[in-house]
Amino acid sequence: MADDALFEFLHMEIVSHIYKEQQSGKGEMDNKDRAVCVSVLEGMGFRVGQGLIERLTRDSPSFKDELDIMKFICKDFWTKVFRRQVDNLRTNHQGTYVLQDNKFSMLTQLSSGKQYLDQAPKYLAFSCGVVRGALSNLGMESVVTAEVSVMPSCKFQVVIQKL
Amino acid sequence: MADDALFEFLHMEIVSHIYKEQQSGKGEMDNKDRAVCVSVLEGMGFRVGQGLIERLTRDSPSFKDELDIMKFICKDFWTKVFRRQVDNLRTNHQGTYVLQDNKFSMLTQLSSGKQYLDQAPKYLAFSCGVVRGALSNLGMESVVTAEVSVMPSCKFQVVIQKL
Repeated sequence: MADDALFEFLHMEIVSHIYKEQQSGKGEMDNKDRAVCVSVLEGMGFRVGQGLIERLTRDSPSFKDELDIMKFICKDFWTKVFRRQVDNLRTNHQGTYVLQDNKFSMLTQLSSGKQYLDQAPKYLAFSCGVVRGALSNLGMESVVTAEVSVMPSCKFQVVIQKL
Repeated sequence: MADDALFEFLHMEIVSHIYKEQQSGKGEMDNKDRAVCVSVLEGMGFRVGQGLIERLTRDSPSFKDELDIMKFICKDFWTKVFRRQVDNLRTNHQGTYVLQDNKFSMLTQLSSGKQYLDQAPKYLAFSCGVVRGALSNLGMESVVTAEVSVMPSCKFQVVIQKL
């Protein structure tokens, strides 16, 4: 329990540090500043995701296809990292996947509903990076974005980059 | 297991980010730069420690004295945050405490022995802050420093600031 809290508190600190550092000296942040923050957090997540998936797949058999990897991400990986399984996985069978988590662990610390909806992207950048890093280490380059309409529910869109 | 890893990987990322950001544009870091990094990490730890102790003591009875608080930190708090108890607690009964952890969790990822000894302070600043934050929320203002002679063993010195 406290271990989760340790991670969550540290994550909050990092988000706040990175936004403060980008803002320092300026009055308001513009979209470019916000993009820099998201990119820094996403990059951290990417490397963390790479490290985590390496540990998690150490004893796993190899995967048979892309969908098999996505299922592993939605079940085993999500449970270990975000403490529950993805509620719903959809795909267009052309490299786009939508992962819906109705109670996303990185948002449960924030009030539910719509009040702080504009704050959500701050707290999702790291997680998007984690997913992208994990997939990358399994040989799938992707673009991962997140979308929230009502907290703490969250939809991740994964678009695989075909070579 | 993965939750611990999640925290550890994130901690590594933040240490590396803060050192890189301080170094950017300069060749070598001087002592002042290093002090800034340590102070930023310590500050993050401080706020995390405050948050953690609040959760951990929610259902605890109140403490009878300073030593009682230190024992709680060495047992319950340490176990929750650093995954083991402190091995040895000493005090001069004048407000100075030395907490020895022979296998400190934040150092077990680094090679043991003396090879990377000069890197240890980077990875201890956050923890010193955590301890100081926890004590501060229990009404004890302190200065917390850490000292490593052989990894992964670590000695924390807590000096209580009398008002």
